[in-house]
Formats: sequence, structure tokens, C-alpha cells
Amino acid sequence: MTSLIEYEQSTGLVREVYDDIRTTRQTDEINNFWKAIANHPPTLQRTWAMLKEVMGGPGELDPLVRELIYIAVSATNGCDYCIASHKAAAVKKGMTDTMFGELMSIVGAANMTNRLANGFQVPVDEKFKRPV
Amino acid sequence: MTSLIEYEQSTGLVREVYDDIRTTRQTDEINNFWKAIANHPPTLQRTWAMLKEVMGGPGELDPLVRELIYIAVSATNGCDYCIASHKAAAVKKGMTDTMFGELMSIVGAANMTNRLANGFQVPVDEKFKRPV
Amino acid sequence: MTSLIEYEQSTGLVREVYDDIRTTRQTDEINNFWKAIANHPPTLQRTWAMLKEVMGGPGELDPLVRELIYIAVSATNGCDYCIASHKAAAVKKGMTDTMFGELMSIVGAANMTNRLANGFQVPVDEKFKRPV
Amino acid sequence: MTSLIEYEQSTGLVREVYDDIRTTRQTDEINNFWKAIANHPPTLQRTWAMLKEVMGGPGELDPLVRELIYIAVSATNGCDYCIASHKAAAVKKGMTDTMFGELMSIVGAANMTNRLANGFQVPVDEKFKRPV
Amino acid sequence: MTSLIEYEQSTGLVREVYDDIRTTRQTDEINNFWKAIANHPPTLQRTWAMLKEVMGGPGELDPLVRELIYIAVSATNGCDYCIASHKAAAVKKGMTDTMFGELMSIVGAANMTNRLANGFQVPVDEKFKRPV
Amino acid sequence: MTSLIEYEQSTGLVREVYDDIRTTRQTDEINNFWKAIANHPPTLQRTWAMLKEVMGGPGELDPLVRELIYIAVSATNGCDYCIASHKAAAVKKGMTDTMFGELMSIVGAANMTNRLANGFQVPVDEKFKRPV
Repeated sequence: MTSLIEYEQSTGLVREVYDDIRTTRQTDEINNFWKAIANHPPTLQRTWAMLKEVMGGPGELDPLVRELIYIAVSATNGCDYCIASHKAAAVKKGMTDTMFGELMSIVGAANMTNRLANGFQVPVDEKFKRPV
Repeated sequence: MTSLIEYEQSTGLVREVYDDIRTTRQTDEINNFWKAIANHPPTLQRTWAMLKEVMGGPGELDPLVRELIYIAVSATNGCDYCIASHKAAAVKKGMTDTMFGELMSIVGAANMTNRLANGFQVPVDEKFKRPV
Repeated sequence: MTSLIEYEQSTGLVREVYDDIRTTRQTDEINNFWKAIANHPPTLQRTWAMLKEVMGGPGELDPLVRELIYIAVSATNGCDYCIASHKAAAVKKGMTDTMFGELMSIVGAANMTNRLANGFQVPVDEKFKRPV
Repeated sequence: MTSLIEYEQSTGLVREVYDDIRTTRQTDEINNFWKAIANHPPTLQRTWAMLKEVMGGPGELDPLVRELIYIAVSATNGCDYCIASHKAAAVKKGMTDTMFGELMSIVGAANMTNRLANGFQVPVDEKFKRPV
Repeated sequence: MTSLIEYEQSTGLVREVYDDIRTTRQTDEINNFWKAIANHPPTLQRTWAMLKEVMGGPGELDPLVRELIYIAVSATNGCDYCIASHKAAAVKKGMTDTMFGELMSIVGAANMTNRLANGFQVPVDEKFKRPV
Repeated sequence: MTSLIEYEQSTGLVREVYDDIRTTRQTDEINNFWKAIANHPPTLQRTWAMLKEVMGGPGELDPLVRELIYIAVSATNGCDYCIASHKAAAVKKGMTDTMFGELMSIVGAANMTNRLANGFQVPVDEKFKRPV
């Protein structure tokens, strides 16, 4: 088990990142994920900077769609922590039970067809080899 | 290499599914994926029925978002065929280069944080254990 | 690209393993897999010893079933080489087109339900926690 | 955590599927997997229809072999729920401790050789490129 | 749940392997991993023989580096047991908190770039196709 | 297929990153990976910044060990591009054929034991639950 670094114990770079998390997310709570990776401050700093930009920065995909994509990857990889935390985030951003069900049905279908394509050794169609 | 069953060769259940693919997609072309799995007609029939409903049936998620989710899973699983074919499908449904770039940056970030959560053995926060 | 060590070039431990492969499989052909990992003789030796026993030694599972299991894993992992080579091996041991289709439909379904179980965070039933 | 829909609470499509599960499996018990995905009735309906056919319908592979294949995929994907529930199913269908051990040794060996083939970048033998 | 075979219960081949584990690791404790796979003695014997050689035998990679590689694979596969047990092993061999953090940052980055390479369908550079 | 952005075509942020890659790696060549993800400049910029730091910045793990870890992940994920490019990088940093063989034998063994731990449902030993 990794020890968790609480806000009160944090100093230096870790404290700076924690403060930015609090401000950005407008809550005092800091999730265990950050408290765990804070054991290696450069990983905390880089990961937070990336997620802040990728999940919350400007872009063409809206915030809920980003969460759905994140959950799709996490369910495919079987990451329990990531599924639990991003499901909560998606609900906050408007995910309904039906949306979640549809998301899961796509994730399930894609995982099925990915392996069928592998197993049947399907050659890529010429039309799909052209640059898009 | 799996042999591909062309439309002209198809009979019975395979022909029926091929005809439904042509009608649904409004094109005479049938992708190699279907021509390959047609070697086992029940798999062709079941897979097409599921994908038709999951990717194209009524629902709260719009068709482009469904394709983005499908690509996210396929990139995570490293399925070359599925990436190539669904990228083309997504472009048809309006995916811009920027959207694809954003999609990939989320897929990349989620694959990174999934493994950090595993490796650091992050315990699930109590608040994420409540039913959502 | 890894260089391949041909039978004629082989010496010492590599030659010994190659000779055992030839005898066991009753063919002069040695697959590229062995020619590639022969670049590290202890890996060649250990891997061959394991596969010979696991895939061909005495046991309760018959040889064809073992190949089906091997293909199931390889399709799930998306290993092109392993799918190609073990499909050929399975055909030699009696796999029909229908069996392969059924195998793939199970592999596809299991990959789908595995991710549904992850995503829906299904708690393990009490009865499944008992020793079996 | 996903909430579980009990038989008593179920209505409409969910009740229909539950009744079919009970009849097919000849038991009143419904596993948590179904109770969880019942939160999205179309996913419940499609998944049950597929599994019923793939795992229990007519075919050339016998029911125990199908379970072994299912476990092979689930162990490769690390799906705890699926391993636990299908191990129980396999035992019911006749899987002995020795069979399970042999299954695991094949799953382990295939996972090992899959990555060796990747890492050593083994080129596919010409003979394996021919249609089978 | 798999039943665990304790040292006191062990006989024959299992006892021999247990004794070799005790001698090699200079401790009376036998980890649950071995107690579980002991349910299939040939798997226990083969797995121990391989790990003993691969992780502890002579070679150019030092023992700590071997553990780091093992953890990298286990975090990528999301194997909780393997992460927990090999993290402990790595600490015994000198892994510092900083090393673990660096390891995780590489594992995270590689998992990210692996999927970017997949998703962007990056063609392999000519120079990388030459034998190394 | 993704189109590749050549150095000569590059402008703005992409040109800046390309120049930094050239300076850092002391070569005019830019790998296809960068030319592909340059289609989404923020992903190029973030990914390069991360890799530069993680693979080449100061730290306790030496540069060759970092490459070995990177290859371990890439072989486990089956990323052909990443295996090819980082094998070349590792050779430049001193990886011998024997080291590569040992690396692969560990990667193979870990992939095997990861699935054995899953399949046998091995409970984590109490001693491994303590913080490290």
C-alpha cells in the first residue's frame, strides 16, 4: 500500500499542485489518486498539468464527452480506481444512467469486435489505407 | 489469412445480413470485417445485429460520440483494423482533425493514469464507493 | 527486426533445441518464432521446454482444446504471429471452420462481458467467494 | 458502485430476461452481473441473448470447453468477477482441479509467448500467410 | 477462491519446491502465490524453476533492474498481487521511493505513447526496420 | 493512415518542438512518431515535454534502464512501433543482445505469472498490505 500525503503534510511543489487542484476543482477535497502519486512530486506535477489541460482545457470536445472517453479506456483496461472516480466526475457533468448504459454497450461491442478482427485476421480494406 | 466471402458468393443468412448492411449503410460496399466473419454465419448475424443497434440505433449519445468511444477502445486495445475503419466512419460523421487529436490526448492520458493508479495501488476514496 | 538463426547456423544449446523441435514435431521446418528467440539461447531452451510440456505433454485436456485455449489468449492479446501459427496448428489437430467460428464468438463475448463487469463495477456474489 | 436490481423490483423487459435466465439455468438465483447491467435494459437483453446462444446453444464445442475458453480470456484480461463466476460454472460442468491447472498453464504460457513474439518482432512465416 | 496449500500439508513435488523456495530465499515464509498454484504441482514446479532462473540466476541485468522490469509489466497488466509482492521484493533489493516514482513515470509515459502510436497509425521508420 | 508533417512543412509550435527534438537528440532526423502526432500540436508539445523529462531528465535510474522499462511496457502492450523505435534507442545506450534476451525473458515470465495470479485468484499476503 502506498502512503497518502494529506494536504496538511504537503510542502513545496506538492502543496502548490494541491492548491491548484483545490482552486481548479473548487473543492477542498483532494482525491486519493493525487495523494498517492504525490510520493513522487514530479509525477504529481506533470500528471496534474496534463489532466487539467486534457480534461478541462479549451477544445472541441465537451467536458462530458471527455469523461465518457476516459471511462471507456478505464473499463477496457480494468482500472477500478479510474472507473469509480471518473464515473462520479461524469455524473457531475450530466451523465445519465442511460448514457452510461449506452457507453458500456459501445465499450463492450468494441472490445468484442476488436478481438474478432484480430482472430479472423481481417486485412485492412484498401479504402481505409488512404490518408484521412 | 481468413478467406473473404464476397457478396456475389454469399447465400442464405450471409446474403440476408449483407443486404441489410447495404441498405442500412446505403452503399454497395461491404467491409472486409463482415466478409471475414461471414465464415461463421451466426457470428456475422449476431455481431451485425449488435453493432447496428449499438452504433446506429436510437439513444442519448449522438453518432459521432459513439464513434469516438469506439476508437478510444480500439486504440487502447491496439486493433489496427478497428482504428482504421472507425476513423473513416468518424470522419464521415463530422470528426475534425482537432477532435481526433483531443480524443487521442484523452486516450493517452487515461492509459497513463490507469497504470499510475495500479502501480501506486491507490485505494478508492470512500465517496466513490457510494452508489451513483 | 530480429535476425533469424537458421538450423544450419545453429550450434550448441540452440542446435540441441532445434533437433528436439524437429524430432518432436516430426518435420524439418522450424518456425520463425524459435529462430528469433534463439538469439537468447536460455530463453529458447526454457520456452521450448515449457511449450513442449504444456501443449504436448500428458494431461486431461486434449491437444485440440489446448490449441483453442492458446488462440483465445492470443486473439485477446492481439498477437498476430501467435494467432497465425496456432490457427495452423489447430487445423492440423482437427479444428473445423465451425469450431473456429464458435471459438471466436466465445472470445468476443468474453471480452465484451469482461469490460461490462469492470465498467458496471459488479460486486462478486457471496457464493462465488467460497473455495472451489 | 452500481445498484443491483433484484428480481422482486424488476418489471418489463428486465423481468422478462430474468424469467428467461431462471428458466434456462433452472435456478431462482440471478447473478450480480445481470442485476447490475439491468440498469440498462437493452444491454441486459442483448448480452443475455448473446451469452445464452454462445455458451449454451447448439455447436461443435462442448459446454465445458466453452467455459475453459471463457476463463482463458477472463484471466488474460484480469476480470475478477468473470473468473470467479465462470470457474464456478466450469466446475458444475465437470472441470477438475487438474483441468483447471492445465488451463492456467496454457494461459500462462500463451501470455508469455505472445509477448516474446511481440518483443522479438518475429516475422510471420510464409506458410502461415496462406488461407486456412 | 483458491485454497492455499500450506507447507505443513505439502508432500512430494510440492514439498520439494517449497523447500527449494525456502532455501533460495533464505526465509521460512512462502508467499500465497506459490501456495495457490501448488494446487497444480507441475505448474508450481515449472513456474518456480523459471522465476528462480529469470529473476535470480546469473545475467547482465542486476537483480533490482529485473524487479523494476517485472513491476513495469505488472502495472501495465493491472495485476494487484504481482505489484504488491514485487514492490516489496524491489524495496528489499534497494528500490528507493524516487526510483519507484521514476519507474511509474516511465510506465505511465510508455502506456500513453503506445496508444498514441496505435491511434495515429504511425508507420515504422525505414531505419527501424533494419536488423539490430 | 495519418499524414506525416515534415520538418520543412512545420511552422509555429510544431517547428519549435521539432527544433528542440533536433537539439536534444543531436540529429536532424525526426521520427515518424513526432511527425504523426504533430497533426495535433498540443499533443506533440505535451508528449515531447513529458518524454524528454521522463526518459532523458535527471534521475536515479540510468538512461539504459529507462529504455528497458519502456520496451517492457511496449512488448506487453504489443506496440510494434514503440518496440522498434525504443529497441534502437536502447542499443544506442548500450543494450547488448544478452540484455535484450534477459529483458524479454523477464517480460515473458511476468506476463505469465500475472495471469496465473489472476486465474488462481491469489489473495494478497498480509505482509504485502503494509505500507512500503
